[in-house]
Amino acid sequence: MIKYPNGSEFVTKQKTVKKHRHLASASNRGMAFEDAINKSNEFYIERDVAVITKRPTPINVVKVDYTKKAKITSAYFEKQSTTDYNGVYKGYYLDFEAKSTKIKTSFPLNNITPHQIKHLERVIRHKGIAFFLIEFASLHEVYYLNAKCVIDYYKHEKRKSIPLSDVRKYGHLIKRGFCPIYHYLEFVDKYIK
Amino acid sequence: MIKYPNGSEFVTKQKTVKKHRHLASASNRGMAFEDAINKSNEFYIERDVAVITKRPTPINVVKVDYTKKAKITSAYFEKQSTTDYNGVYKGYYLDFEAKSTKIKTSFPLNNITPHQIKHLERVIRHKGIAFFLIEFASLHEVYYLNAKCVIDYYKHEKRKSIPLSDVRKYGHLIKRGFCPIYHYLEFVDKYIK
Repeated sequence: MIKYPNGSEFVTKQKTVKKHRHLASASNRGMAFEDAINKSNEFYIERDVAVITKRPTPINVVKVDYTKKAKITSAYFEKQSTTDYNGVYKGYYLDFEAKSTKIKTSFPLNNITPHQIKHLERVIRHKGIAFFLIEFASLHEVYYLNAKCVIDYYKHEKRKSIPLSDVRKYGHLIKRGFCPIYHYLEFVDKYIK
Repeated sequence: MIKYPNGSEFVTKQKTVKKHRHLASASNRGMAFEDAINKSNEFYIERDVAVITKRPTPINVVKVDYTKKAKITSAYFEKQSTTDYNGVYKGYYLDFEAKSTKIKTSFPLNNITPHQIKHLERVIRHKGIAFFLIEFASLHEVYYLNAKCVIDYYKHEKRKSIPLSDVRKYGHLIKRGFCPIYHYLEFVDKYIK
């Protein structure tokens, strides 16, 4: 533990921020993956390529102490009934969910909610572009997969997962880069064509 | 105070929910207006007209008690750096902010952040449709106004407000209806044409 000469504890600001961010989406796995996507989106915004933002985690606020600058003293995380990301690119509406799995052989669908599936179906009906970004963490591989494919599996297959071989067949491997870390819009371009 | 025969307090569930909703967006004025827009959006979703959702209020979570089902024990409301609503309609990306004012003669711009203006400019550049829904609460009038107009006032006018006469001139009065309460997509259609 580093301490100031006066004995008080030294805490870097960055550390605090990181901790908060972790807490704010404690319900999600694959925090590093989410961070990489957020950074990719920041890059897209900075370079004026697209405006894609993460929806804040919905929180059910129960109690607020207004004597202390509206401090929330009791609240609970809620599940997104939509997806994590949406935005605009070349006039198109984009909507996607980012998921990370440690499983090496398939992409499990059990933490996708029926609400999310309905939402994605609606987006497709209204001519938005809907997809998933899937990280196979143990394999260090990230795929772009159209939501249509995930919906088909979700609705018609008995087993609630998509085999890796099918993710590879129907999706696109996104190579990890520097700026942006995951250039997923490349595959949105392919889809538009 | 209504009490059960056993002496315990009678609290309706609805009351609790309402309170939570109020707390969850305590930073916003014009809660009734926001509710009316949310209901209009629900109608659009139910009738399969469009998918437009409200971004959850961003909350900066400081402390979580994991011994109690991940109860948040310390957190603060944050300002949206984007807008309150976005979604897809006929393949178009929509992005808008809903504001209510009690002032009768102009729409004040002082609670629109520079972040929001930047966000709306980006949306327009990427061919999204950006606008404001403005309620003059004392007049019981609601207007649809293109974001371009608000941005122009924000950047070029010294006084940080738009006179009501100009809101009327450049915007469209949205008559209050039943389903949806505010059929603002009518004016998005005009814009698309």
